[in-house]
Amino acid sequence: MERIYGSEIGKHAGERVRLAGWVHNVRALGKINFLTLRDASGIVQVVMTRAELAQLDGALPESVIEVEGTVVAEPQAPGGFEVHNPAITVLNRVSEPLPFPINKPDLDVHIDTFLNSATVGLRHPKKRAILRLSSGVMGGFRRYLDQHGFVEIASPKIVESATESGANVFQIDYFGRPAYLAQSPQFYKQMMVGVFERVYEVGPVFRAEPHSTVRHVNEYVSLDVEFGFIRDHFDVMALLTRLIRAMLDHLKADYAGELDMLGAQMPLAPAIFPHIYFPEALQLIYERHGEDSRQEPDLSPQHERWLGEWASAERQSDFLFVTGYPMVKRPFYTHPNPIDPRYANGFDLLFRGTELVTGGQRLHQYEDYLEALRSRGVVDVKPFEGYLQAFRYGMPPHGGFAIGLERFVMQLIGASNLRETTLFPRDLNRLSP
Amino acid sequence: MERIYGSEIGKHAGERVRLAGWVHNVRALGKINFLTLRDASGIVQVVMTRAELAQLDGALPESVIEVEGTVVAEPQAPGGFEVHNPAITVLNRVSEPLPFPINKPDLDVHIDTFLNSATVGLRHPKKRAILRLSSGVMGGFRRYLDQHGFVEIASPKIVESATESGANVFQIDYFGRPAYLAQSPQFYKQMMVGVFERVYEVGPVFRAEPHSTVRHVNEYVSLDVEFGFIRDHFDVMALLTRLIRAMLDHLKADYAGELDMLGAQMPLAPAIFPHIYFPEALQLIYERHGEDSRQEPDLSPQHERWLGEWASAERQSDFLFVTGYPMVKRPFYTHPNPIDPRYANGFDLLFRGTELVTGGQRLHQYEDYLEALRSRGVVDVKPFEGYLQAFRYGMPPHGGFAIGLERFVMQLIGASNLRETTLFPRDLNRLSP
Repeated sequence: MERIYGSEIGKHAGERVRLAGWVHNVRALGKINFLTLRDASGIVQVVMTRAELAQLDGALPESVIEVEGTVVAEPQAPGGFEVHNPAITVLNRVSEPLPFPINKPDLDVHIDTFLNSATVGLRHPKKRAILRLSSGVMGGFRRYLDQHGFVEIASPKIVESATESGANVFQIDYFGRPAYLAQSPQFYKQMMVGVFERVYEVGPVFRAEPHSTVRHVNEYVSLDVEFGFIRDHFDVMALLTRLIRAMLDHLKADYAGELDMLGAQMPLAPAIFPHIYFPEALQLIYERHGEDSRQEPDLSPQHERWLGEWASAERQSDFLFVTGYPMVKRPFYTHPNPIDPRYANGFDLLFRGTELVTGGQRLHQYEDYLEALRSRGVVDVKPFEGYLQAFRYGMPPHGGFAIGLERFVMQLIGASNLRETTLFPRDLNRLSP
Repeated sequence: MERIYGSEIGKHAGERVRLAGWVHNVRALGKINFLTLRDASGIVQVVMTRAELAQLDGALPESVIEVEGTVVAEPQAPGGFEVHNPAITVLNRVSEPLPFPINKPDLDVHIDTFLNSATVGLRHPKKRAILRLSSGVMGGFRRYLDQHGFVEIASPKIVESATESGANVFQIDYFGRPAYLAQSPQFYKQMMVGVFERVYEVGPVFRAEPHSTVRHVNEYVSLDVEFGFIRDHFDVMALLTRLIRAMLDHLKADYAGELDMLGAQMPLAPAIFPHIYFPEALQLIYERHGEDSRQEPDLSPQHERWLGEWASAERQSDFLFVTGYPMVKRPFYTHPNPIDPRYANGFDLLFRGTELVTGGQRLHQYEDYLEALRSRGVVDVKPFEGYLQAFRYGMPPHGGFAIGLERFVMQLIGASNLRETTLFPRDLNRLSP
């Protein structure tokens, strides 16, 4: 008999079926006993007599079992069907209790305890739902871009120079000489605009930032886009807006169960996301909250939260573009605003008051790169040679952005710690499992 | 006027259109002159008078231009249409010659010269076709697995211990303590079988192997699959066969132009790929080629080529499974053949005589892992703790495999060097661009 998933038993009412999965929970009441079996599709209820229960022979939760039984309609059961008269085979016995129970509706455990045993903890239905959503975010991202002429690339993660920002990179021993882990595919995706015009990448990025906050980890998944023949950063923002809306539609269509289980509120995402110019954002904060940061070159997390509240209340949007950050705070490849070169043709996209995306227009003239590097004190451009070559040989006006995958899921479900949305997070103190 | 792609001009015969892209080639004949414009969609021909040619003002190939012109049907032109009466704007001028020409039908340049200027060289139409195929291989892989209940994961690339094989890993300085680059997602994908049953990952892997061959690089993209509730490795081989056939169908459907441009022969891929047991493979080689390697624990590249020839000629298949490699040559998590434990319940899949995939059934009992580690001389299992936890708390029989992306494309198009199929390869001597 072929194994079927628990979600399929409704199609087999009255028949014998074969199921397989994990012992999620056992309620031994005496004459009638209940076992919930968890498989890839979800949870199914098995009803056992005392003798049938004995087949488990003391196997503890998370034991792997096969169950052959008869499907019976039962309105009270999850899904409307349950399994009776089971013949149970234990495939892999668990004989010690779990580090913490994973068969309660909520995982009530400290984040560190959880992460120490993430291999087991991730089996909890809500944790599985978060990881599924995460895969859905990647899937929706790729789907939209595949449909719009973007080519997927896989850029190298080992790079020769710590050139992108000059700091916060991990060093590698590369056959006896130093190399570094790419802190983003920025250089490569720009170079590839020269090849394909429109490219994207889903891949790991590495940031050796020696601080520990609830919204940072040192390795995460970056959803990167770069494309050519733009007028300015507003073309980039327009594409990003359509992309985010398509990603949200994808989640609504294919991940409704996960969103529901996690109590996620779908965000307000109007057809045009509001935008505010950086100096105006600081002015707004001053007027609404009395904090005068109008001389600051960047936004603090509190500023971002205030702006998020404003966008939600006044613009009916959980997304807000902040454009025109001061050039001093942006990387050297940033294209300045031609009208006021102190400010960048770039943006951050805030999602519910937290930075989700950074992007903008890039320089595209070779001479502008030389000047930008010079003005930032870079004397030797040799480490940039491979990158600069693309601009010497014809690059169109272009721009792009990077979305943090875990940040997206965190803000979507309202998690309080980015580590709740990562498979096995890496931070200052954690390298395992 | 909105820009259109060159591939779309047939829909605008007789109209003025706006195009943008790179100067691919200029043939200045005098009264009539030809410019080929390259954009994301391909190549389009622009016909110019002497005066119209002057608008280029000496801009060299790879200059980025905009062209407004009238679409005219012309059976001789590529695609059956060309552009007349162009108004040309140079968006980004190239004023120095390229390191090598990229507008000939073939790139006639040494691989090292090419790789030194890959940023430009990858713009060659055949190189673009290879990279597009590569993205098509990733796309076909994901599509099949998405349709068959697999969940995409993104496992960490920075790991605490060099545990998987104990050698050939790159060391990182992780905030002052040693860490390593993951040589595969093997441990993590197995752990995630405990969570989702069926998982896959597309991601970079890092191998610090200090040798340089035409079929190895030190960073490549691995297409990884792992799933539970199998009987043995033949279930894994059956899934892999269906997956490969679906990937080939995807390429045939969506990448016919690229396959054609590269002269790729689609492989013989029967519904059931032939398989041969390792000892029988060596016996066959002995009988057909007189080389007695029947005591060897592994296959040499020449052995693989001979076996590939045999499968193609005698079994009408460009794919051949070799099963039952000696356990001594397989990693500790390999499940032995229960009938003859000297040999593994595992396989390599040869594609046209080169190893493309390694896979098999894994151990799933905690005690078996302890014994396997012990028998290989591992005294301290602490570095394996996070991994082993999954097996302590219930793992089903499971298995999986890893496909080398670049290897797949190399064998598909008959490239002579793996570096021809990689964006920016990393090897013993090359770290840039």
